[in-house]
Amino acid sequence: MQKGTFITFEGNEGCGKTTISTKIYEQLIEEGYDVIQTREPGGIEIAEKIRELILDPEHTAMDARTEALLYAAARRQHLVEKVIPALEAGMIVLCDRFIDSSLAYQGVARGLGIEEIYQMNQFAIADTMPDATLLLKVDPENGLQRIASRKHLDRLDQESESFHYLVAKGYDEVAKLYPKRITVIDANQNVEAVYADTYRKVKEVIDHV
Amino acid sequence: MQKGTFITFEGNEGCGKTTISTKIYEQLIEEGYDVIQTREPGGIEIAEKIRELILDPEHTAMDARTEALLYAAARRQHLVEKVIPALEAGMIVLCDRFIDSSLAYQGVARGLGIEEIYQMNQFAIADTMPDATLLLKVDPENGLQRIASRKHLDRLDQESESFHYLVAKGYDEVAKLYPKRITVIDANQNVEAVYADTYRKVKEVIDHV
Repeated sequence: MQKGTFITFEGNEGCGKTTISTKIYEQLIEEGYDVIQTREPGGIEIAEKIRELILDPEHTAMDARTEALLYAAARRQHLVEKVIPALEAGMIVLCDRFIDSSLAYQGVARGLGIEEIYQMNQFAIADTMPDATLLLKVDPENGLQRIASRKHLDRLDQESESFHYLVAKGYDEVAKLYPKRITVIDANQNVEAVYADTYRKVKEVIDHV
Repeated sequence: MQKGTFITFEGNEGCGKTTISTKIYEQLIEEGYDVIQTREPGGIEIAEKIRELILDPEHTAMDARTEALLYAAARRQHLVEKVIPALEAGMIVLCDRFIDSSLAYQGVARGLGIEEIYQMNQFAIADTMPDATLLLKVDPENGLQRIASRKHLDRLDQESESFHYLVAKGYDEVAKLYPKRITVIDANQNVEAVYADTYRKVKEVIDHV
């Protein structure tokens, strides 16, 4: 059974979660913790191929439910091949994006409903829920500015500005639904302050799980 | 809303459902009905690509839940791009395999449970259930003999004989759960008799929907 600690990082495009989770990872390694950092599809071949299908800019005909099912499929494979083995080995797993991304993006922004997406994802997850989730909350206009400099935009980056606002609204709703699991971090602060807030919470979780 | 008639064909490998549904299709066309014959992924680009992922013989690490989610994703896209438009145009849609395949293969043969697979597939289908389903029931040893001559075996054809027996058992359970929607046809008979039984039922459905 699960012996490790499963911590996920969530937030809008440009919220800085990769930067922050990488700093957390490096710090925990330095402190001697047994930790991996990952993100879906995380180098897992089958999950990577599924993700390619989702993000292919040519797939404009992709239905929102198809998209949600594909995300759940990639999630499942990444979980089985990478996350669960690490948890069973007693490691700390830091994961960029997990079920809450689907709740915010597909459930709210695509309008499929949080409850429906949650139920369908339970099939994929089969009880491996995060011990804690850090939601890096950034104002959508800040987030969009931060990603504007990226050269390669995939199918999701190309979504309209209003879509990104809907995602932010989605995360707010999700945070309200799971106040115990999800900690909201103010990601409009400078990176040092965001890191400090996140690190404090991560240590609290590791030391109390 | 749906104005057409949605009829699905199900059964073990080698039950002859493609042969039979093709004969039905040709007969209905001759009688002047507005009808299409299809099967997942049915030439729908996104669904075809998902199916390739599932059947790739190299993907031996694919988890059963991942597989079930991918089938549901392909099902959704095929439904949205092909089946629903035809039904909305008032056509008869003959479809080889649909939700019952997942119930028998993933629900029973893979052991994930009929109820769990049904619920997850409801997310994909969103109320577009078949008006009627013809289950061509063949003894697994007969079915396996019929497919033994096929040259190219994909990842599912390569499953063990016991897997094919489990699928047959799965279809039996599914038929018991939905006696009103599913009609069991004895597919151990010669093709003319199977066709006659199937045609009779199809006409009954078309004339009474």
